[in-house]
Amino acid sequence: MKIAVDAMGGDNAPRAIVQGALEAAAEVDGKIVLVGRRQELESLVEEYAAEVEIVDAPEVISGEDKPLMAIRRKRQSSLAVALTMLASGDVQAVVTAGNTGAFMAGASLLVGRIAGITKPALAPVLPTMDGRGVIALDLGSTMDPKPENMLQFAVMGSLYASTLFGLDQPRVGLLNVGTEPEKGNDLALKSYQALSGSSLINFTGNVEARDIMEGACDVLVCDGFTGNVLLKSMEGTALAIFAGIKEAVMTGGLRAKLGALLLKPALKQFRNKMDHAEHGGAPLLGINGVCIKCHGSADAQAIKNGILKQAWPLAQDEVINKISTKIGGI
Amino acid sequence: MKIAVDAMGGDNAPRAIVQGALEAAAEVDGKIVLVGRRQELESLVEEYAAEVEIVDAPEVISGEDKPLMAIRRKRQSSLAVALTMLASGDVQAVVTAGNTGAFMAGASLLVGRIAGITKPALAPVLPTMDGRGVIALDLGSTMDPKPENMLQFAVMGSLYASTLFGLDQPRVGLLNVGTEPEKGNDLALKSYQALSGSSLINFTGNVEARDIMEGACDVLVCDGFTGNVLLKSMEGTALAIFAGIKEAVMTGGLRAKLGALLLKPALKQFRNKMDHAEHGGAPLLGINGVCIKCHGSADAQAIKNGILKQAWPLAQDEVINKISTKIGGI
Repeated sequence: MKIAVDAMGGDNAPRAIVQGALEAAAEVDGKIVLVGRRQELESLVEEYAAEVEIVDAPEVISGEDKPLMAIRRKRQSSLAVALTMLASGDVQAVVTAGNTGAFMAGASLLVGRIAGITKPALAPVLPTMDGRGVIALDLGSTMDPKPENMLQFAVMGSLYASTLFGLDQPRVGLLNVGTEPEKGNDLALKSYQALSGSSLINFTGNVEARDIMEGACDVLVCDGFTGNVLLKSMEGTALAIFAGIKEAVMTGGLRAKLGALLLKPALKQFRNKMDHAEHGGAPLLGINGVCIKCHGSADAQAIKNGILKQAWPLAQDEVINKISTKIGGI
Repeated sequence: MKIAVDAMGGDNAPRAIVQGALEAAAEVDGKIVLVGRRQELESLVEEYAAEVEIVDAPEVISGEDKPLMAIRRKRQSSLAVALTMLASGDVQAVVTAGNTGAFMAGASLLVGRIAGITKPALAPVLPTMDGRGVIALDLGSTMDPKPENMLQFAVMGSLYASTLFGLDQPRVGLLNVGTEPEKGNDLALKSYQALSGSSLINFTGNVEARDIMEGACDVLVCDGFTGNVLLKSMEGTALAIFAGIKEAVMTGGLRAKLGALLLKPALKQFRNKMDHAEHGGAPLLGINGVCIKCHGSADAQAIKNGILKQAWPLAQDEVINKISTKIGGI
């Protein structure tokens, strides 16, 4: 098995990407293919020559590039080359921390969707209090899905949850403004009908945003617009609270500073539990190949986890085939 | 000027509601009308007879009642009686901590909308790091607004911000998944056009959920579905983090416990800054009268603030007339 890593994508590329890939390579029974500017990459990997391969890609897609245009014009970019290798079967997964829009556009254009899937979904793991997390999809790929897309999200998310969490019948919840079936906007009302009427998933009903972190479900289904707002408001609130606590400590005098010092190890443990890098990345489900998106600010650890906890098990478990089979049944 | 308070609505009714109303009555140059079961209320208010009036309403709408049915059938409920008094001009505002759905249905049915407004909007203040807050609307009243509703939300929110924050040209932001004009779902894209093309507001563009608490705008416009998810995810994340910190302290041994004890006063100050009760409640804008919704769990302090910081200034400032005039210009 081979996994292609877009070595040029992300805020910390290429150094942190290469480092994470090398660390992962040491732990897997397969090959990591680093895609990017050969010279730059060779200077970073010398010692590990046996476990990694380098494929040259002279162009780079930056975070500022317009997604569709970048994919169409920069065919020699590290991202486009990696996705083309996935499409041709040369690798079994692609991992990138680069331009999200370009990744989504490139995956659809170059790799294509699974037959029967009309809309892909980005499916990150949101933090929960028990430290395990909940798979949420879609979180930014499909802005205006139809109810039938939402059902496909539910099926794909369930199969992903089986691989990631080892669950037999993952509980699927629908993000909504109340738990009652008659709550919600037009899409939520119709999606409730689609989800509750399907035997392909274990639907537990509507889930309110405030109950997500309590672990109300294993798979949370939502449209890409609301899901993206949800994700960013969780991030923003968490950042604001930790910044607020820090400020309170700074302006709270000696007493507060001493308290913070004593409390630090316990708080650090808690923050680690909530940390995004833990899961490494999120799959773009519905694409006809394993595509993993890591956070733009991913460090070596996140890239390593993206390979070991996402790309590798999803490819091993043949999740794409499973989705393909199950979607045929809708 | 008279303000009607639904004395029977909310988790802490009637005791906390009456207490908050009495405290507010002592500070305003007008009368508070307590609406509810006369006997129960009289036993709670004896000493303040001069500042408050009691209007009997034998029925009560509970949190479990179906909104529309409750308003239609329980015409003698405290909520319906209070709203009927507002409609007939006997009072200049209504404050309730009761059933939100019944309040919204009752306000539309019994008081009616401002001419030209097709959809009302619930407009609470979300916390920001600087402690002032941002007015967000709609947060749960209108699930599927059209772009022209979103523009009306923007206009109403701006006038409300002028009264609440004393701002001349409040900055209006549109909740979206990116700051670029071409980002968003169909509604967000069309709303961007409607808002950016209007001379009635000071539009500053799209605002991402993670930038809200940083104070990216004074008025945040969104549809009621996404807004409600946003509000509840902020609440849920904050609760989860504080619960997580508490757990980390509890399991962190003597060191962590001592640290927490020392840090407590500074943290308490910070939590107060983020506290919802601070603003007292949220107006239901677009209704032809001042309607203030307090949180279901509102205590006496929240009710007092709902009267003094919301109902009173909005009625004094004739915000309803201002909205009516400005909406005529769209």
